[in-house]
Amino acid sequence: MRIIDIIEKKKDGLQLSAKEIEYWINGIMDKSIPDYQTSALLMAIVLKGMTVEETSNLTMSMLNSGNIIDLSSVKGIVVDKHSTGGVGDKSTLVLGPLAAACGAKVAKMSGRGLGHTGGTLDKLESIPGYNFNLSKENFIKQVNEIGLAIIGQTDQTVPADKTIYALRDVTATVQSLPLVAASVMSKKIASGADTILLDVKYGEGAFMETKKDAELLAKTMIDIGEHLNKNVRAMITDMNQPLGYAIGNALEIKEAIDSLKGHGPKDLEILCYNSAAIMLIQANLYSDMESALKAVQGAVDDGSAIKKFAEMIKAQGGNAEVVNDASLLPQAKHITVIKSEGSGYIEDIMAHQLGVLAMQLGAGRSKAEDDVNPAVGLVLKHKVGESIKKGEPIVDVYHDNELNLEWLEKLRTSFKISQNPVKVEPIIYKIL
Amino acid sequence: MRIIDIIEKKKDGLQLSAKEIEYWINGIMDKSIPDYQTSALLMAIVLKGMTVEETSNLTMSMLNSGNIIDLSSVKGIVVDKHSTGGVGDKSTLVLGPLAAACGAKVAKMSGRGLGHTGGTLDKLESIPGYNFNLSKENFIKQVNEIGLAIIGQTDQTVPADKTIYALRDVTATVQSLPLVAASVMSKKIASGADTILLDVKYGEGAFMETKKDAELLAKTMIDIGEHLNKNVRAMITDMNQPLGYAIGNALEIKEAIDSLKGHGPKDLEILCYNSAAIMLIQANLYSDMESALKAVQGAVDDGSAIKKFAEMIKAQGGNAEVVNDASLLPQAKHITVIKSEGSGYIEDIMAHQLGVLAMQLGAGRSKAEDDVNPAVGLVLKHKVGESIKKGEPIVDVYHDNELNLEWLEKLRTSFKISQNPVKVEPIIYKIL
Repeated sequence: MRIIDIIEKKKDGLQLSAKEIEYWINGIMDKSIPDYQTSALLMAIVLKGMTVEETSNLTMSMLNSGNIIDLSSVKGIVVDKHSTGGVGDKSTLVLGPLAAACGAKVAKMSGRGLGHTGGTLDKLESIPGYNFNLSKENFIKQVNEIGLAIIGQTDQTVPADKTIYALRDVTATVQSLPLVAASVMSKKIASGADTILLDVKYGEGAFMETKKDAELLAKTMIDIGEHLNKNVRAMITDMNQPLGYAIGNALEIKEAIDSLKGHGPKDLEILCYNSAAIMLIQANLYSDMESALKAVQGAVDDGSAIKKFAEMIKAQGGNAEVVNDASLLPQAKHITVIKSEGSGYIEDIMAHQLGVLAMQLGAGRSKAEDDVNPAVGLVLKHKVGESIKKGEPIVDVYHDNELNLEWLEKLRTSFKISQNPVKVEPIIYKIL
Repeated sequence: MRIIDIIEKKKDGLQLSAKEIEYWINGIMDKSIPDYQTSALLMAIVLKGMTVEETSNLTMSMLNSGNIIDLSSVKGIVVDKHSTGGVGDKSTLVLGPLAAACGAKVAKMSGRGLGHTGGTLDKLESIPGYNFNLSKENFIKQVNEIGLAIIGQTDQTVPADKTIYALRDVTATVQSLPLVAASVMSKKIASGADTILLDVKYGEGAFMETKKDAELLAKTMIDIGEHLNKNVRAMITDMNQPLGYAIGNALEIKEAIDSLKGHGPKDLEILCYNSAAIMLIQANLYSDMESALKAVQGAVDDGSAIKKFAEMIKAQGGNAEVVNDASLLPQAKHITVIKSEGSGYIEDIMAHQLGVLAMQLGAGRSKAEDDVNPAVGLVLKHKVGESIKKGEPIVDVYHDNELNLEWLEKLRTSFKISQNPVKVEPIIYKIL
């Protein structure tokens, strides 16, 4: 077998065999295939696509490049979820405790943020003392005991994905349905859960711009799951505006806590309560959405959801008092209130741009090696569709350093006001 | 400017600016752009194409990566030609002396063969003593004195092309109209001639399989010439069967000599006489094909064409007596006559396969560092369309080592015999 023939085949738009894909991934791992051949093949895949069978085989080969976490010693069905990423997406912090409070086993490995999107790990790290470096034994022990643990991904999780992603990042081959699907699915399957719920976001702040593309990605990942005998479900959700109000690590922890208590932002609560309900069905604990949603609402109402979050924080060495006293979280030095420059209905809150602006404040990182400031960020005062008067607060800026004029101007242009009432997209477009 | 944005742009099928292409080529030369980014961009170019303007700019940027030979001290218009390569293509050795004998200045830099195609330099090297390493001064002096010199390409000729070609060769990005056109045109323009005649071959033994593709490539190269103010013309010629009868270095020298004397193979003579005539028109020595062709025929008839070839051989240190006594050329140890296995009309003589078989005899090289045996090769006894009887010789094999059965079987399957008369394609399909 020769890699040049494999590149040629994909260049001509033909389907690669399982053996050919395996040969490529093995060649990446043992370094017998140089980067310049892999990047040519990646570009051919971007432009010629891959069938579900090819994508499933790519997922399998990538999966086999590293360790698969063995969670068989967890009692019960282990559920996991993955979001394709967005701005203000703190849903893991809400739906995890919710599902665990209702009896599911949630064993989750999370990552850090990059660019305009945040990472669950960065958010959790703003809780004083929180430790996400558990040994495998302690991870499983915690899941068995309290039903919930969120830890960091290890370097042994799908090493082929790391090499391929590093190349994709510098060769304009990030945007590719099969490459994204195989990357996500290999990492999720390597994490060892029995079931996977995918939150595939569409819109200005998401990886996929349109509903159609998001649905196609979701269907591809469900198909891969079927090929590989995994219970995979997916939600297609809106990311044209940030999720909830808060963007920034400690600010999002506070919002997650509010949502677990039942007084969080509507869109975030709808998304998380529905996600948790689907996960409960995947875990065979409930058979229909109505009863599952009722259980989730019950966990919020009786305080067991927020209690579960506190339990996890405590088990992982963090200060669980944050759930009662948000002032224990890192606090920004300054809060600057930005006022609306017009009156009318909010037509657009540009998610991507706000993600970048929050990153520039220090809430995110532009390079993987950057540090993150847990205290800073943005808190919206309104959501799309709401009416506002000129001079009313539209967004609060939590910052440690002085704000520059160019940044402020960019922040102001992130909000579009219309004179006419605006149709609001539901947060959940479809459940697959 | 960032190379990733340039790759992204081409991936999206957009047109690159002159500055962007220049940035890329400069980055290749100063090694600031790694191979894995160049190979991703090459694949995007293969799959998304390039406009004539982009291809012209690529040609210019590649050209500027090295030295352009200054032939301004040659008196008169310097003509050059380029063939896209084929099997048994010794046309340079015929049309060069023909054009020079009729008054044109022919200053030609040639290359070596690779794979199934031969190289003019390998053929000339079979003439005892022939030296193709002339200094620039002696090259120009010889062109001024006798009107003809054929030397080797130097490493300083379009170094960007060498780097790019080495990458294309291992990333399945060789087949690309803009990349081929820019590679050919940059090297031709760097060679310093005033006019260029392109022989773009189509068919089984050529780079382009169809007439349409060959014409498109030819037109692209003519357009590049127009963009860069070069007089470029092109012929589209048939390469479904080998050109002439001989494949192999010394054997092709002999056939070129025969053609310069007017008793060579018909297809080779038609091709070369017409090529020389077009070059004479490009050199402003004749204004129409009729008078130019008459002059060329005259040079054959009065012996000045073959005399010109002998002059060049002598000037470059070779034994010019070969033009009178072909036995002075390297001789193979054995000649094996292969007989036809059927009776009928020859329908197909598979050029590519015969090129590979000749290479396997030692007439060509599979890797750039291989040596070539000047004496060995194949000599056809018939051309497509001719009738043959079972048991009559169909091809002679000139060889030094024993022939193996598998090779002989492959040789036999290179000829297809039909019971019905066969339509023969003219050697020249079109002159542009």
